[in-house]
Amino acid sequence: MKKIFYLFYFLSFTINMRAEDGYRLWLRYDLVQNKTLLNKYRAQVNACSLFGNSEIIEAARNELSMGLSGLLGGKIPVYNVTPGNAAKILFAGTPTTSAFIASLPYKEQLQQAGKEGYIIITMYTGSTSTIIIAANNDIGVLYGCFHFLRLLQTEQDISQLKIVSAPKIQNRILDHWDNLTRYIERGYAGISIWDWQRLPDYLDQRYADYARANASIGINGTVLTNVNANSWALSPLYLVKVAALAKVFRHYGIKVYLTARFSAPIDIGGLKTADPFDAEVKAWWKKKVDEIYQHIPDFGGFLVKANSEGQPGPQSYGRNHADGANMMADALAPHGGIVMWRAFVYSSDIKEDRYKQAYNEFKPLDGQFRKNVMVQVKYGPIDFQPREPIHPLFGAMPQTPLVMEFQLTQEYLGFATHLVYMGQLFKEMLNTDTYVNGPGSTVAKIIDGSLDHYNITGIAAVANIGNEKNWTGHPFGQANWYAFGRMAWDHTVSPSQVATEWIRATFTNDKKFVTPVLEMMMGSRENMVNYMTPLGLHHIMGYGHHYGPAPWYDKALRADWNPVYFHRADSAGIGFDRTSKGSDALGLYAPGWRRQYEDMNTCPEEFLLWFHHVPWNHKMRSGNTLWEELCFKYYSGTDGVLWMQKAWQSTKGLIDNERFEQVNMLLKIQVNEAIWWRNACLLYFQTFSRQPIPGKYEKPDHALDYYEALRFPYAPGNAQ
Amino acid sequence: MKKIFYLFYFLSFTINMRAEDGYRLWLRYDLVQNKTLLNKYRAQVNACSLFGNSEIIEAARNELSMGLSGLLGGKIPVYNVTPGNAAKILFAGTPTTSAFIASLPYKEQLQQAGKEGYIIITMYTGSTSTIIIAANNDIGVLYGCFHFLRLLQTEQDISQLKIVSAPKIQNRILDHWDNLTRYIERGYAGISIWDWQRLPDYLDQRYADYARANASIGINGTVLTNVNANSWALSPLYLVKVAALAKVFRHYGIKVYLTARFSAPIDIGGLKTADPFDAEVKAWWKKKVDEIYQHIPDFGGFLVKANSEGQPGPQSYGRNHADGANMMADALAPHGGIVMWRAFVYSSDIKEDRYKQAYNEFKPLDGQFRKNVMVQVKYGPIDFQPREPIHPLFGAMPQTPLVMEFQLTQEYLGFATHLVYMGQLFKEMLNTDTYVNGPGSTVAKIIDGSLDHYNITGIAAVANIGNEKNWTGHPFGQANWYAFGRMAWDHTVSPSQVATEWIRATFTNDKKFVTPVLEMMMGSRENMVNYMTPLGLHHIMGYGHHYGPAPWYDKALRADWNPVYFHRADSAGIGFDRTSKGSDALGLYAPGWRRQYEDMNTCPEEFLLWFHHVPWNHKMRSGNTLWEELCFKYYSGTDGVLWMQKAWQSTKGLIDNERFEQVNMLLKIQVNEAIWWRNACLLYFQTFSRQPIPGKYEKPDHALDYYEALRFPYAPGNAQ
Repeated sequence: MKKIFYLFYFLSFTINMRAEDGYRLWLRYDLVQNKTLLNKYRAQVNACSLFGNSEIIEAARNELSMGLSGLLGGKIPVYNVTPGNAAKILFAGTPTTSAFIASLPYKEQLQQAGKEGYIIITMYTGSTSTIIIAANNDIGVLYGCFHFLRLLQTEQDISQLKIVSAPKIQNRILDHWDNLTRYIERGYAGISIWDWQRLPDYLDQRYADYARANASIGINGTVLTNVNANSWALSPLYLVKVAALAKVFRHYGIKVYLTARFSAPIDIGGLKTADPFDAEVKAWWKKKVDEIYQHIPDFGGFLVKANSEGQPGPQSYGRNHADGANMMADALAPHGGIVMWRAFVYSSDIKEDRYKQAYNEFKPLDGQFRKNVMVQVKYGPIDFQPREPIHPLFGAMPQTPLVMEFQLTQEYLGFATHLVYMGQLFKEMLNTDTYVNGPGSTVAKIIDGSLDHYNITGIAAVANIGNEKNWTGHPFGQANWYAFGRMAWDHTVSPSQVATEWIRATFTNDKKFVTPVLEMMMGSRENMVNYMTPLGLHHIMGYGHHYGPAPWYDKALRADWNPVYFHRADSAGIGFDRTSKGSDALGLYAPGWRRQYEDMNTCPEEFLLWFHHVPWNHKMRSGNTLWEELCFKYYSGTDGVLWMQKAWQSTKGLIDNERFEQVNMLLKIQVNEAIWWRNACLLYFQTFSRQPIPGKYEKPDHALDYYEALRFPYAPGNAQ
Repeated sequence: MKKIFYLFYFLSFTINMRAEDGYRLWLRYDLVQNKTLLNKYRAQVNACSLFGNSEIIEAARNELSMGLSGLLGGKIPVYNVTPGNAAKILFAGTPTTSAFIASLPYKEQLQQAGKEGYIIITMYTGSTSTIIIAANNDIGVLYGCFHFLRLLQTEQDISQLKIVSAPKIQNRILDHWDNLTRYIERGYAGISIWDWQRLPDYLDQRYADYARANASIGINGTVLTNVNANSWALSPLYLVKVAALAKVFRHYGIKVYLTARFSAPIDIGGLKTADPFDAEVKAWWKKKVDEIYQHIPDFGGFLVKANSEGQPGPQSYGRNHADGANMMADALAPHGGIVMWRAFVYSSDIKEDRYKQAYNEFKPLDGQFRKNVMVQVKYGPIDFQPREPIHPLFGAMPQTPLVMEFQLTQEYLGFATHLVYMGQLFKEMLNTDTYVNGPGSTVAKIIDGSLDHYNITGIAAVANIGNEKNWTGHPFGQANWYAFGRMAWDHTVSPSQVATEWIRATFTNDKKFVTPVLEMMMGSRENMVNYMTPLGLHHIMGYGHHYGPAPWYDKALRADWNPVYFHRADSAGIGFDRTSKGSDALGLYAPGWRRQYEDMNTCPEEFLLWFHHVPWNHKMRSGNTLWEELCFKYYSGTDGVLWMQKAWQSTKGLIDNERFEQVNMLLKIQVNEAIWWRNACLLYFQTFSRQPIPGKYEKPDHALDYYEALRFPYAPGNAQ
């Protein structure tokens, strides 16, 4: 009887009182569970004092108050003055807002912190300590406060803090592919959180919480609208709505950007042309930009997709990308705005390997862009695949600041259903050595400007955020948002460090949970590569919606939208020959890089089929033939997911039941879909290899025709 | 300093610990605030015992445990046995599951409770009391538990309970206009809560909470899919998903229904025809229905929109609605399923007043439908306007059970932005006397079957639910969901009783809050009629999206989609002559009804322009001319909203800040949009009346052309 009662009581408390619906993200400020540490923290901080009275300091004050009260479980007074006795009080401010901060002996550290950075220092007066969060600007104070709260959330020692932190990249931006209808292209977590219909007067609580979350990880910009753009977003009806969002975000140091449709002068301006050399067109953009800045004085600028996948652009008028970008840049320059011009272009009229087209169009334009133009490049040459070689443009445009574009929304990575931690994908791309200026010319050094001395720098990621209660659909989707922000701020931080922070802040500090879940996350991306596209396979998913495997698909109007274009399997072998004997895409890279990849025997095997058409019986380093290795990889991918499922189940009871069950259900789907990928791909490729799947592996449970017949007409995220 | 601290502490507690995001709806089980009453309750109930072990009893046990623990703030043990000492224990069960319940002297009351009803009785043994919740079936026990919890939530005396409650209508159903893409037609609260992509394996917590909310107000059916139907919903891919939802809902006594697209045998069956007389077509539906019942043994049946607004139907094959409905009914009958066939039909090929078309098509079919067919009729003859006369079919089909169709989603009532309580709209329609069998032939008696002795009865409402955190977008949208359920169960309950319950359960029992908010709600619908469509105006909103006023609109392809078709304003007057000298729609009604409406001088003025083309200088009962009265009504509507705004502001501090601010922001929009409606309509009608807006009123702030030029291409809810 007692047992029944306790069970229900626990249930009721959980469900009714504080359901863990994931809305709080990693900003959970529940009481520190380690009692010893809690008492220590309480002895170190029992009040805080913030200097300054800007809206950003107001935000910092709210956050610190909310965070400390929750974490330390008491009433933590928040002042904005310097009391006589400084012990146990946390002080935060800038040398400008506080003579006290100005008087401290941390000039050098503050210099290192720069415009947006901060220092966090445990200062001692005799044996009593004081925590100092100092910065050169209020935004640094806010960032420092978030960092400090994270230390408590993750149960770190705060008795000897000597933190100096400054972002390595200036513009750290989320790109929302959100339409004005609130439909999100490639969105898997509901619809857009921008409730355009009720803006500007109705301000959803989400807007502030979105800004808090971004500021907590150092993101300082957001592009509100889809790159497949709608000119109406630039109309007065919408600009007042954008301004209302900008006002909320400004409290958290976040600038607002919009996508600009190149044909806007025609669509909403009543002009007959959008030719960037036309005087009326130039004047229209100038006037439009002036109007935008009247609404939003700190407007960030435009993100533009032009002459790509049906979007209008300067080439329609015989002009090039630089001509188009510069026209907008000239309108933005007086206000300090920037243009991010996307390099994701490829044409069906051109027979060239799609891999090479963006390079061929953009490389010749290096040096022709205005100073406030950046060219935004997806990490790989095709399209956000689970693994891609680095895009050949990185390192090829030393006179043009390049923005790295990642994709948090899992268009090709299992939607919001598969658990895939992207920290290692980010790291893999950023650490890639392009050899353009000799060894050590990493992508990170290119985009942070240290290699080519860019005057502006940027990094962007397509958001995975929607209006589902937990923001990202999959609870672990939050980790990718988090990791992007943390690594955009500091690309030297390790994926495992970031994952550990996130797990601790989001779930619990209990090592019995942290250890296996970290292992799950760290292995998750390689698992996915293995069960979807091992050994360099790419772009073999379902047409249009990109859901599930369809390596057999060959019905798309454009050749380079078909999986068969990319894997080129035949009786001789599989893979896309991009060596000098094939499309010579490898010729776009620096010699140091190219040499290694050009030779089938030195090419890293994880990229093999990106660059070589490889015979089925080719001997791999493992001793397996290619076919055997392909089978091995696909099966090890699914084994990996089965392991993840077990590992997760071992954590039952260590966290709230609600999120535990969510992940458990999602892992069940991931297991099934991983097996589906494996079976469908192997059965299909087997029609070329004509070799058996080794008997030691579980047999596919359906024949190939079963998989080929599956249809998913309403899989989410496809353009609407 | 102290003050600052307290402010922030309060804020932090609210935001961080238990944000009132509205997700809990009216099922909030927070500690009873009245301490005297709390102690009294604790003395009356300190444990509960439920008999039975069905999944429904399991749900009741969860709810009672969660509810009592929360409301009484202690550990309330839940047993499932009869202890020796019954004092202070609440007992719930049926005579079948419990000998103890069977032994109680409440046979007669239980008989009245019927299949789904329940009794709640305070039973005394000497001076110690025991609460008894008894029913004939487990679902009645669940309903009784929800009712009992509501008594505590709303701080009612439970020391003398003698409640006998039974539903007056059998099928109480929510219709979701949700597409398989999750887009909701006329949805203003996000996208569909049915996450088709991740069903059947991922079961969102919302599914259970949706079922709990519905069961708590007696709703026992849900149509998952849009009446503008998609045949794929009947495919095996989706049936397993539907079955997963049905399994969750079954715990709460809720049956699942689907919309059946009439052309499904062609769309997904590979047949060449959907002719209901074709043997193959009949066989296809029979097989399809058998397949559905294999997945969902308690499947409810089909809702069908046929030969209406482009939907396929039996008329394409020279058959009539009865032929189509009966074919499906024959397939469903062996399984106990029903067909709800919609009467919302009108054709552009027919010149007849749209008002009359459904009547003309359906009335002749009375008596031709199978026993398991119901005809579903919108409350009014046009389309869910803020006020409509009753649909003439009510009372005209004595041999055909009619389902009343309401619309909770505010397609024509201000989207999820305007505060409009529909309790009085429901009541007005249900209480309308049709006079078909003489005075007292109310619509309620028609649809509850008491007038015509229907063998099945039903009532439905188009849901206003989406995936926004608070379910309905506007916090007060929840009240309409609540009121529909309560009045579907018992149409004799008053709108103000229902509103009071809802306010107390959803916000607080504090009279300083309840009194003004009740007044706001009770006046809200008449306000809306006044600022949108007073005196019988109808269908004068924006084309397509239905957002805002557009009485001037005349560009729609169909005449009867144009506002000018409906208001017919000219220099002589305004209104649609539907008397015997006009379209004679009044001729469809019983003489007792008709006589009153036929004469301009006895026609209730709130319906005047529905039935008469009235001269601008017609003297109204107030002594005003029609034009003056029109101005008066429009201005009193906006004054009413301004009053609501003030009344709401007077409640600041009495409830959580989060929901207070939400409603505050929404009322600001409502004020602006009400003024917009008033100004646009009066300026437009003034072009015909050629009379001034009386000088005592505030002047419109723009000229007519300003309003006519407004465009809202992405207003939500329009078909996609």
